[in-house]
Amino acid sequence: MRLRNKPWAKDFMAAHPDVLIHEEEGATIDWKSVFANENPIHVEVGTGKGQFIIGMALANPDINYIGIEHFDNVIVSALEKVIEAEKPSNLRLLRGNGANLEDLFQKGELDRIYLNFSDPWPKSRHAKRRLTHESFLARYEKVLKQRGEIHFKTDNRKLFEYSLVSMSAYGMNLQEVSLDLHAEMPEDNIMTEYEEKFSAKGQPIYRLEAMFNN
Amino acid sequence: MRLRNKPWAKDFMAAHPDVLIHEEEGATIDWKSVFANENPIHVEVGTGKGQFIIGMALANPDINYIGIEHFDNVIVSALEKVIEAEKPSNLRLLRGNGANLEDLFQKGELDRIYLNFSDPWPKSRHAKRRLTHESFLARYEKVLKQRGEIHFKTDNRKLFEYSLVSMSAYGMNLQEVSLDLHAEMPEDNIMTEYEEKFSAKGQPIYRLEAMFNN
Repeated sequence: MRLRNKPWAKDFMAAHPDVLIHEEEGATIDWKSVFANENPIHVEVGTGKGQFIIGMALANPDINYIGIEHFDNVIVSALEKVIEAEKPSNLRLLRGNGANLEDLFQKGELDRIYLNFSDPWPKSRHAKRRLTHESFLARYEKVLKQRGEIHFKTDNRKLFEYSLVSMSAYGMNLQEVSLDLHAEMPEDNIMTEYEEKFSAKGQPIYRLEAMFNN
Repeated sequence: MRLRNKPWAKDFMAAHPDVLIHEEEGATIDWKSVFANENPIHVEVGTGKGQFIIGMALANPDINYIGIEHFDNVIVSALEKVIEAEKPSNLRLLRGNGANLEDLFQKGELDRIYLNFSDPWPKSRHAKRRLTHESFLARYEKVLKQRGEIHFKTDNRKLFEYSLVSMSAYGMNLQEVSLDLHAEMPEDNIMTEYEEKFSAKGQPIYRLEAMFNN
């Protein structure tokens, strides 16, 4: 995604502390207090411009959602949309790095992690940066409850092939696999911005649900 | 596949006992004696008209191949091709039912099983007939050596999705997955008759290699 410099981003983010939390605060946050309830927490790692996580939060008021995004210039677009949606009480944005999940959440605190249209990092030497590399799976396993789930969508065939093998090698169980999600679109599918764009071009969207076997 | 009645099939099959073996004899067969060596044995379940297994046998003289096919009217086409190929000494056809593998082979006797373009049995109530149903995986596991492999190709998306989940649930490890085999065709890929037909229409061919975790 093209990252335009947005000089106003920092001030805009600082003006909405009720929605947007910075990674630096993450370690000390009691998420149950933030949401003022004990509902399950689902996290999207790499939330981009926010369409998916906002749609999910509006559709499922009894689940708490946290969208993590690393880039200021991207997360402000999500923040704009959250404000437009009148700041759903079950949704927060977290400005930070998915690699630091263990600093942001307690062991077993999360119920589910979403990965949507993650960067494919196509070069072999960058495999470690893929969000389905075993080093990331190990982080997810720690912050998820036992037998926690990863739900993953992408248009990138090579990343999906890699992820099937990587999750299998990690001992995860594939629960659901779709190799053309839009051929039989589930009623509850919330599309991301990328998903709208790529499926409009006729590219298949791949999706899986996998469970840790712990 | 359309099954033409071939009244001459039985006689033709009986005329080539050096290539074609009947299931009824299977239980008593010592495969090492048949091949007169101790090379690894790879089996294709549902060998159809034989193009794949013959191509593999010619390309890999140090591996023994057995193609199993249930239908007389189909296996005679494979038999014709084997004769044309001058009866490679490392290849046999076995006229029988893949469901009876345990009667045909000793425990741990096989090194690899190939499934190519198996019948998708699309109706849920026929799921048990799919060659990647857990009841078949259990049979394969028995006749394969420890950590034996299944190599599976199909053009059928639903069957492939089902198979990924079924193999994962069985505890198998996915070693390789391709969701568009012909996009980066491996040099050693031997095409089946179906594969030629479907890939010519531009349909993606799905392929996986999975290993038993025993």
